[in-house]
Amino acid sequence: MTKGYIHVYTGDGKGKTTAAIGLAIRAVGAGKKVCILQFMKSLAYSEQKILQSIPGITLITLGKPYFIAKEGMLTDEQRKTWGNHIRIYPAGHPPKDYREMTLKGIEQAIDAVSKNYDMVILDEYNMARWYDLATEEDTEKILKARRPEVELIFTGRNAPKEILDAADLITEMKKIRHYYDKGVPVRTGIEN
Amino acid sequence: MTKGYIHVYTGDGKGKTTAAIGLAIRAVGAGKKVCILQFMKSLAYSEQKILQSIPGITLITLGKPYFIAKEGMLTDEQRKTWGNHIRIYPAGHPPKDYREMTLKGIEQAIDAVSKNYDMVILDEYNMARWYDLATEEDTEKILKARRPEVELIFTGRNAPKEILDAADLITEMKKIRHYYDKGVPVRTGIEN
Repeated sequence: MTKGYIHVYTGDGKGKTTAAIGLAIRAVGAGKKVCILQFMKSLAYSEQKILQSIPGITLITLGKPYFIAKEGMLTDEQRKTWGNHIRIYPAGHPPKDYREMTLKGIEQAIDAVSKNYDMVILDEYNMARWYDLATEEDTEKILKARRPEVELIFTGRNAPKEILDAADLITEMKKIRHYYDKGVPVRTGIEN
Repeated sequence: MTKGYIHVYTGDGKGKTTAAIGLAIRAVGAGKKVCILQFMKSLAYSEQKILQSIPGITLITLGKPYFIAKEGMLTDEQRKTWGNHIRIYPAGHPPKDYREMTLKGIEQAIDAVSKNYDMVILDEYNMARWYDLATEEDTEKILKARRPEVELIFTGRNAPKEILDAADLITEMKKIRHYYDKGVPVRTGIEN
């Protein structure tokens, strides 16, 4: 039995999710079995088509087709721009249907880390934590259920303390320069 | 015609090459054509098998089966450990056969950015520059040949000034914690 490690890819720079995807590609190339759980994402990312077609990779998406924000996060103007596409909630009380969907994902994560897979990627889990869709208790359950040989990867900004404490490897993707700051919009095939 | 951008993934953290691989997967998922040129790497990485099998991705490796180091980089003890697997050279004068191989890769890069491809990844090019295998002039030739719609990605530590100057997006993969520092060796399917 080879020991597995816990990775965190966080920070405001580009490359967190793509680094995890690259790890998945490398792992299946070495004959490993990989489970990717994408929190807060539905089937709207270009890479998903390819990932679904590669034997050895299981992809599960856990996103709702609307955005969420905690009260006080957005200005009135931003709120108007988003219109019906966003749901605002008081911190700690996320939309019930979204919490239920995430909880199901956490159960799938517990299942994945406790059997079968060599690598489990919890993409954007850090953000699900930040948005109160997942709790510290949920993380502890996942960490506790993990077979020590499973490589476990967390991605997303604002990694919570319990994940940073548990991690063997932490990489901060630090934004030095980004074209977003010049108004370049999200592009299919590059950002999603 | 959509404008393409120049990305740099650099720094001492994990995830530079895997982020580029993830970008390639995302791009082909969106129907784009991708060329990956891997400098200083031969066919010894697990991800290469998968990348070679995906239609829309061309993979070219440009590495020699030995390590190189500039004079003064290693202690006598380190030198002994590496034995015959390493070639030491005075800064600016890399092994001739390695320089020739890299130069061929640079010609392929010029070819790739000037036609056909939507995304060109020059993996570890920054390190090839740092090891004098590629020159500032080579970079300028690649940048000049690039069609403006091509997305061009440079990876590797120690990104040189001319690449940082040209970049639209720079991400520093910053090592916050790494298991290497605890003596964990390189593992197949995770590091290579």
